[in-house]
Amino acid sequence: MANSQEHTYIIIMAGGAGTRFWPASTEEKPKQFLDILGLGRSLLQMTYDRFLLLVPKERIFIVTNEKYETLVQHHLPDLPSSQIICEPSRNNTAPCIAYATLKIMALNPQANFVISPSDHLILRENQFIDALKKALQFTGDKEAICTLGIHPSRPDTGYGYIQYAAPEDELPPFTVTSFKEKPNLKTAESYLREGNYVWNAGIFIFSATTILQAFQRYAPEILNLLRDISYHTADEKTQIHNLYPQTPNISVDYAIMEQANNVYTIPVDIGWSDLGTWASLYAELEKDSHANAVRNRGILTQECSGNLIRIQEGKQAIIRGLTDFVIIDEENALLIYPLAAEQEIKAASRILTDRTDNAQKD
Amino acid sequence: MANSQEHTYIIIMAGGAGTRFWPASTEEKPKQFLDILGLGRSLLQMTYDRFLLLVPKERIFIVTNEKYETLVQHHLPDLPSSQIICEPSRNNTAPCIAYATLKIMALNPQANFVISPSDHLILRENQFIDALKKALQFTGDKEAICTLGIHPSRPDTGYGYIQYAAPEDELPPFTVTSFKEKPNLKTAESYLREGNYVWNAGIFIFSATTILQAFQRYAPEILNLLRDISYHTADEKTQIHNLYPQTPNISVDYAIMEQANNVYTIPVDIGWSDLGTWASLYAELEKDSHANAVRNRGILTQECSGNLIRIQEGKQAIIRGLTDFVIIDEENALLIYPLAAEQEIKAASRILTDRTDNAQKD
Repeated sequence: MANSQEHTYIIIMAGGAGTRFWPASTEEKPKQFLDILGLGRSLLQMTYDRFLLLVPKERIFIVTNEKYETLVQHHLPDLPSSQIICEPSRNNTAPCIAYATLKIMALNPQANFVISPSDHLILRENQFIDALKKALQFTGDKEAICTLGIHPSRPDTGYGYIQYAAPEDELPPFTVTSFKEKPNLKTAESYLREGNYVWNAGIFIFSATTILQAFQRYAPEILNLLRDISYHTADEKTQIHNLYPQTPNISVDYAIMEQANNVYTIPVDIGWSDLGTWASLYAELEKDSHANAVRNRGILTQECSGNLIRIQEGKQAIIRGLTDFVIIDEENALLIYPLAAEQEIKAASRILTDRTDNAQKD
Repeated sequence: MANSQEHTYIIIMAGGAGTRFWPASTEEKPKQFLDILGLGRSLLQMTYDRFLLLVPKERIFIVTNEKYETLVQHHLPDLPSSQIICEPSRNNTAPCIAYATLKIMALNPQANFVISPSDHLILRENQFIDALKKALQFTGDKEAICTLGIHPSRPDTGYGYIQYAAPEDELPPFTVTSFKEKPNLKTAESYLREGNYVWNAGIFIFSATTILQAFQRYAPEILNLLRDISYHTADEKTQIHNLYPQTPNISVDYAIMEQANNVYTIPVDIGWSDLGTWASLYAELEKDSHANAVRNRGILTQECSGNLIRIQEGKQAIIRGLTDFVIIDEENALLIYPLAAEQEIKAASRILTDRTDNAQKD
C-alpha cells in the first residue's frame, strides 16, 4: 500500500536563487541558506528538521542546483550525499519535480511524496505534520494530487490563490476548482469574502503512480526526456547533464496543477510565511519595546522605531532617528532602505551591480 | 642666528587619542592615522608632506604616545625612527612640548621651532608656509612666542579665540592681549564684530631660548623634571619612563600661552579646518549633486541629500530616504546618525562599550 508510512518520501526544493533579500541573500548564498530569523539554523535546516518529525532522514531528499551541492552538504552534514539531487540547469519546478520523483521511484515504485519549498516559515509544526499525514493517507489511497492551502489572514496580493469547492457536509481534502494568479487588491478582498480560497504555498502531496500519469498526460515532453535515464548508476550524471537542460522551463503549477482535474486541497492554519519580503520577515521577528526587530546585542538604537536591523555578528552599531527602515549590514554590502519601498531594492541592486561591472570594464 | 633656515625644526604632535570620529577613529587608531578625506593619505601624512615644503625631513620630528610608535613608522616610512619621540604617558601638551624641544635642543641649541597638530586640514599650503617663514624670522630675531591665528569665517563656539592688538599702521605679528576659552554664540558674534579675534589652531612658533625661558618662568616643575635627562643616550628611555609620568597634566595654552606677555599672532586665512566634527569634515568634502559627500563609487543613493557617507572600500551600499545623516561603516562598527546630533555620538558609543563590557563579564 502506497499510504504506508514507510513509502513516504520528502522532496525539499532548494535550488532557488532568491536574491530578494539583498544584501543578505545573493546568487552565491540564496535565502534558503540564511539564518534569516536569527535562530541559529538556516531556513533549509529548519525545513529539514521539520520533516524529521514525519520521516527518518533516509527518506528526505534535497533537489538543488548543482552549484549549491556543497552548501547543502555543509548545512545538512547528516544527510547522505546520495540524497542530494542536483539539477544541471535551472528549468523551474516541473522538470525539477519530474527528475526527483523519477529518481526516487527507481528506488521505490510505491513512493508517496511530499514536495516542499526550503525557505518558508511554519510556526505550528504539529498541525503541519498532521495535515500532511491526512494528505498522504488520501494520495496513497486515491489517484489524487493534494496541496496544503494556507488559510488567508489578509487580502495579500503577493500570493497565488487556490479556489476550492466545499460542500457543507464534507471534510477536507476539498476538490480544487481553479488556481488563481496573484490578484489585485479588489479581487483578493473578494476571495476573502467568498471564503473558499486559500494561498498556494507550493506544498504538494502525491503518489508515484499519480504524478507519473499527470506528467504523461500534461507534460509528456518532460517525462519522455527523463524517464529512461539510468538512475542510481554511473551513467546518471552524464545523461542528466545531456537531457535535463533540454526540458522546458516551466512551473509545476502551470504544467500540471492548473491542468489536472484531480487536485485537492486541505486548508490549514499553520503559522505559515513565505518570508518573501523584508516586511514579511519583520512581521515574524521578535521586537523590542520600540517595535525594532534587532538581531544582535551590540546595537544601540535611539529615536528608532519599526525598523528591521541585521548587523554582522560581533559588529557594533549606533543608529538614531530612523523609522520603518530595513538596515542590513553584510560583509560586502550595506542596505538602508524604507520598508515601504522594499519592492524597489532589487532594481537598485541591479543598478549598483551594473555600475560595478562597468567600472571593472573601464 | 636662530632665524637661519637651517635651525628650523618641526614638531608634529601626534599623540592624541581622538575618538570623536567613532567608529572611524578609535583609541587604537585615532584620527591622525585616518585617511578621513579619502585622498589616499592619512592626516598625519598630509601634515608631514606639508612641512616638507619648509624643511628637509631630517628636521621634522613626531611626538606621540609610545603605543602609536609603530603606527607612525608605518605611516611615515621615510622618517628615521630617531625622529619619533615617544611619550610614556598622556600628560597633555605642556610636558609633551617641553620634552620634544629639550630633546631637539640637545642636538641644536639654536633651534627655532614650529609646533603643529597632526590632524588638521590646511588647503592653502603656500600661504601657510609663507606665514610660518614670517613667524620663524620673527621668533629667530626676538624673544617671542608666535601663533598662527585663523581668521574666523563664522562665530564658531567650538574653538578658543585669541584677541590681539592691531594698531592701524602696524603689520603682523600682532601682540596677543588674551586667550579666550570657547565662547557662547553671543560672545562669539561680538568677537567677529570687533574684528581683532582669531581662532587658536594650536600652531606655535618659538626659539629654543624663548621656550626654555617661558618654561622656567611659568612651568618650572615640568622643566626641572625633564631638563637633566641624558637625551640621545642609552639612558634616555629609562629616565623618561621614570620622570615624564610625574609631570603635571596640563596644556601649553594654560601653562604658558595664557601667562606669557610676549605672545604674538599672525592672522591667516589658509583654508584651515580642525576636522573636529563630522559636520566640519562634511564641509570640506566634495559633494554630489544632492549634497551627499560619498566616498566610494560602490554606493547608490536614492532620495538622499546632505549626507556624509563613508563605506569600507570594496563594499557596496544602497541607501535611500536619508537627509543630513552621517553614515559610517567600518569593519567592526556601523554608525547611522543625524549630523545635527553628532555631539551625542560619543556618549552613545560609551553606552555601547559599557554594554559590551558587561556582556563579556556575564
